[in-house]
Amino acid sequence: MPKIVDHSERKSHIAEATWRVIMNQGMKGATVRNIAQEAGVSLGALRHYFSTQHELLAFAMNLVKDRAQARIDTVLQLDLPPKEQVTRVLMELIPLDDSTMAEMEVWFAFVFHLKYTDEEYDGLNDNIYLGIHKMVEFLDEQGILKEDLDRDVEAERLYALVDGLALHAMLEPERLDKQRIIRVLTGHLDSISKG
Amino acid sequence: MPKIVDHSERKSHIAEATWRVIMNQGMKGATVRNIAQEAGVSLGALRHYFSTQHELLAFAMNLVKDRAQARIDTVLQLDLPPKEQVTRVLMELIPLDDSTMAEMEVWFAFVFHLKYTDEEYDGLNDNIYLGIHKMVEFLDEQGILKEDLDRDVEAERLYALVDGLALHAMLEPERLDKQRIIRVLTGHLDSISKG
Repeated sequence: MPKIVDHSERKSHIAEATWRVIMNQGMKGATVRNIAQEAGVSLGALRHYFSTQHELLAFAMNLVKDRAQARIDTVLQLDLPPKEQVTRVLMELIPLDDSTMAEMEVWFAFVFHLKYTDEEYDGLNDNIYLGIHKMVEFLDEQGILKEDLDRDVEAERLYALVDGLALHAMLEPERLDKQRIIRVLTGHLDSISKG
Repeated sequence: MPKIVDHSERKSHIAEATWRVIMNQGMKGATVRNIAQEAGVSLGALRHYFSTQHELLAFAMNLVKDRAQARIDTVLQLDLPPKEQVTRVLMELIPLDDSTMAEMEVWFAFVFHLKYTDEEYDGLNDNIYLGIHKMVEFLDEQGILKEDLDRDVEAERLYALVDGLALHAMLEPERLDKQRIIRVLTGHLDSISKG
């Protein structure tokens, strides 16, 4: 009888090995050979699942997106009051624990890598700006956003704030701990909300 | 008679070649060999000025800092009203033209590179957080900052906003042009100032 292998689980296992290689060695270490070694599979086995490095990286990066989206979906199902819901969703975009820190490191490394390659990764735009724009519109429709604010400018400001906090949480974690991030983010949302 | 060579100018020329290599190929392309080729000097000539790759990178990155600091000093000498002065200084930290965009790309590439190496680069902390903290204190001392704001939280928020805008200006320049950056930044400073 042939061995029963969970292909989806095996692919996720290889994707997670890809993340660890990127975290430890940066994108330049993310070769198919290094990733196979980190995953504990042969080069042949890896090639069975991913025929090119490009295909492997696309899968590994999509998994980062999928994990973040799954966490956001969980928050959305909690039926929280609008402002709390927005705050909780935004917090999923900032690394606050080891696992989201890992995702963020891998994502930033990949985004920077793309600047120096001609490779195309369809559908890998993270669309965070559009998502944040919708959150600002949602706060406005719920009558929470202050009336004299420009939704477009507020979306851009909130997007920059969230990615700036994510970047600093990654690069300067000693100063910018979880409590401090929450204080800045909730303070900002209070400042754009009616009193 | 020996040729007269301006050593400082020659070193800056090599540093600028280093920036171009980093921008075109990322940090992984920033080898002594590639940089010598880009600068149009022999490997021996380059080694005359910089005995190691580490020394060369440290010089090239310090030159990024020095150029930014020189621009900031020029703004400070203009004797502008406090809020305008702060706005203009912050705008020097966001890439708004080709030359500052280049500096920002090189700086981010280098900062990420440092995460994956054990190399030490003394004095290369950019201290932007401390500088922004001082700007918030300055606005407060000048009676401009709203009284109910926490200076520490406002410094962290402004720092995240500025670096988030810098990051997005670099990665998503089509949406986030100069006028939009100025609108977000001046809007933010207005929101923390007395009416």
